[in-house]
Amino acid sequence: MAKEGADMTEETECMIDTNSAKDAGNVQAPGGGKEMRAVMLAGFGGLNKLRVTKKAMPEPQDGEVKIRVKACGLNFLDLMVRQGNIDNPPKPPLVPGFECCGIVESVGEKTKGFEIGDRVMAFVNYNAWAEVVCTPVDFVYKMPDEMTFPEAAAFSLNFVAAYMMLFEVANLREGMSVLVHSAGGGVGQAVAQLCATVPKVTVFGIASCFKHSAIKDSVTHLFDRNIDFMQEVKKISPDGVDIVLDCLSGENTGKCLSLLKPLGTYILYGASNTVTGETKSFFSFAKSWWQVEKVNPIKLYEENKVIAGFSLLNLLFKQGRCSLVKKVMDKLLCLYTQKKIRPVVDSLWALEEVKEAMQRIHDRGNIGKLILDVEKSPTPLMASDSTETSEAGEEEEEPEGDNDSKERMPFIH
Amino acid sequence: MAKEGADMTEETECMIDTNSAKDAGNVQAPGGGKEMRAVMLAGFGGLNKLRVTKKAMPEPQDGEVKIRVKACGLNFLDLMVRQGNIDNPPKPPLVPGFECCGIVESVGEKTKGFEIGDRVMAFVNYNAWAEVVCTPVDFVYKMPDEMTFPEAAAFSLNFVAAYMMLFEVANLREGMSVLVHSAGGGVGQAVAQLCATVPKVTVFGIASCFKHSAIKDSVTHLFDRNIDFMQEVKKISPDGVDIVLDCLSGENTGKCLSLLKPLGTYILYGASNTVTGETKSFFSFAKSWWQVEKVNPIKLYEENKVIAGFSLLNLLFKQGRCSLVKKVMDKLLCLYTQKKIRPVVDSLWALEEVKEAMQRIHDRGNIGKLILDVEKSPTPLMASDSTETSEAGEEEEEPEGDNDSKERMPFIH
Repeated sequence: MAKEGADMTEETECMIDTNSAKDAGNVQAPGGGKEMRAVMLAGFGGLNKLRVTKKAMPEPQDGEVKIRVKACGLNFLDLMVRQGNIDNPPKPPLVPGFECCGIVESVGEKTKGFEIGDRVMAFVNYNAWAEVVCTPVDFVYKMPDEMTFPEAAAFSLNFVAAYMMLFEVANLREGMSVLVHSAGGGVGQAVAQLCATVPKVTVFGIASCFKHSAIKDSVTHLFDRNIDFMQEVKKISPDGVDIVLDCLSGENTGKCLSLLKPLGTYILYGASNTVTGETKSFFSFAKSWWQVEKVNPIKLYEENKVIAGFSLLNLLFKQGRCSLVKKVMDKLLCLYTQKKIRPVVDSLWALEEVKEAMQRIHDRGNIGKLILDVEKSPTPLMASDSTETSEAGEEEEEPEGDNDSKERMPFIH
Repeated sequence: MAKEGADMTEETECMIDTNSAKDAGNVQAPGGGKEMRAVMLAGFGGLNKLRVTKKAMPEPQDGEVKIRVKACGLNFLDLMVRQGNIDNPPKPPLVPGFECCGIVESVGEKTKGFEIGDRVMAFVNYNAWAEVVCTPVDFVYKMPDEMTFPEAAAFSLNFVAAYMMLFEVANLREGMSVLVHSAGGGVGQAVAQLCATVPKVTVFGIASCFKHSAIKDSVTHLFDRNIDFMQEVKKISPDGVDIVLDCLSGENTGKCLSLLKPLGTYILYGASNTVTGETKSFFSFAKSWWQVEKVNPIKLYEENKVIAGFSLLNLLFKQGRCSLVKKVMDKLLCLYTQKKIRPVVDSLWALEEVKEAMQRIHDRGNIGKLILDVEKSPTPLMASDSTETSEAGEEEEEPEGDNDSKERMPFIH
């Protein structure tokens, strides 16, 4: 807490009147325990399942740090969590969010390596979208001095995933070619920047047409997501490509595999094709996710191909690979301080604006990362909303989402 | 031809009275065209389909070299070819064999980079098991001065395959662990040696018990092929291994996949489980090869795993990657001259002894590579056999193979 004021000046450009929101977040709850604001998912479903609410503030356990959160990353996966469109989802109500950054407010016993006041970014296994987050030090990394909080919230998941796919799974080297879907998204932009750190890498990007002017310099060739990318890639490189990064899944998998050069690697790292509407569609779920075409190892043998899956969150939280991720993060922060990579922030949103932010990512409207800025006040349309009022009741009549709210624009970076 | 005599002294220890065989190989055929001895596969089936016969000697075309063959490599794949147990087999009669070494006897027009007298090793798309082979320069590599012909015949396929799997497909690095089946075979021994060039790599090898004393120093842990290797590996490394190299296929694939660490790579590079008897068994073929369990990319995503197939011959002859293989060969020859790797030769056999050699590889009797030594005379039992006499007729009564012939032992290296 003591250090919070000192760091605020640096963040001023990203904040809009933070004081009222912050004061509201630190009220004493009855009984002496502190409370905090957090985004709550009441149950799996549409946007109306999300609300901002008060929650008991967590305290750090042994080996944990308590972070006063400044900003959180919003990922496509959060949409899938909201829909319940993931394997073994936890039981709602829950606080979503897998990454945040902020300032260390206190540390648990036996917690080493961090001190109160440290500016940090962290992975969290849910619960990131709150004013305060406690997480084991294994998942916490110090931010470089020159990194802003929105940048930090946009950095961790996208760059670590992009780096590990390109260099740990696929072994990207000079002269190779990479095809990336959703080139305008957070991972897509991280992939493009990391590819630029290796000589003579050709990047084929696929993105919606309206993003092309904004991202055209980040990739070598850019294709509209509505055209037949296979044909277009083969026109330029009849041989195919060395690496395909696929976050769509479903029927896309087979197409991507056929685009691989011999010794090429296909990496599946998401399944956005399973999301067709605001709520989970069992039809698209089954079609795109569970019934994605299975691959015969013999076919891989005959064609000399490699197929991989990558889930950073499983790697961290189910498979205990935090020390490997730490090494990767060190390399990435080195690239950041050398100014070779820089996270692309699409827009900043108040916690209360999480629905609009999710709608934007659902509509593929973003270029780079969407950030929840914990200290940002909602734009005027929502200004009268009380954070203590559940919005679920009001919106249950509108299962297709409150599209009018898209008029309320966030701070665009 | 002129250089042949000069190089013979070096090979003397590996040869048994070569002169008679060589003289027989260079007779003038009626009409002036030269003839040569070659192993011929009359049709797909058992050992009785193989014979040594005379054939018109090929002449080099544009961009080809003509090699006076000294030694050829015999691989498990050759057994599968004999049985017709491969995808899209060529039509017999054919001369089997995919690798050989010898001395350049002449070069075609527009052939650059090689001169008469060069000691070379080569990949060939069939036709290797003959006294003379013509092949494009893309598949020919100069032998280091200190390399013997049996070593060269044992080198190309095994070391290139092992290297590419470990370093091109799987990205082997310090501290990783590798599980290799058939650790006593040619590829297995190459894998073990290449792993030893990287610091702190743990190699789990699986091999028949009787080979253990011979190969125990080449790997870290050695298991009998008849035990449950999954249990044994997990006792030592509960987490699993980083890389699995599988030449068995079939039900082995699923076991190996479950042994992978997160971010681990499984590589299928053969299917020796399809070979159960002397002739092709459609039952084991179907069970082990075509119906190997298919892999769901979603499972790879959840488990962070990589599955790959590797076929060096497809890479060379179907997918045109000879320049990449050339680079790999350069690195390998560098490791050879630094004495970091050295091919393990199991035994040398005359062309006329190809059946016994094949039986030995079928019985998993070999430690390292089986070599067909073109200049070697058959051991006494076969000494009276004429190379011009088809043996098929004599043996057709014995579909299970002439097991007595195993008494005729080759020169064991």
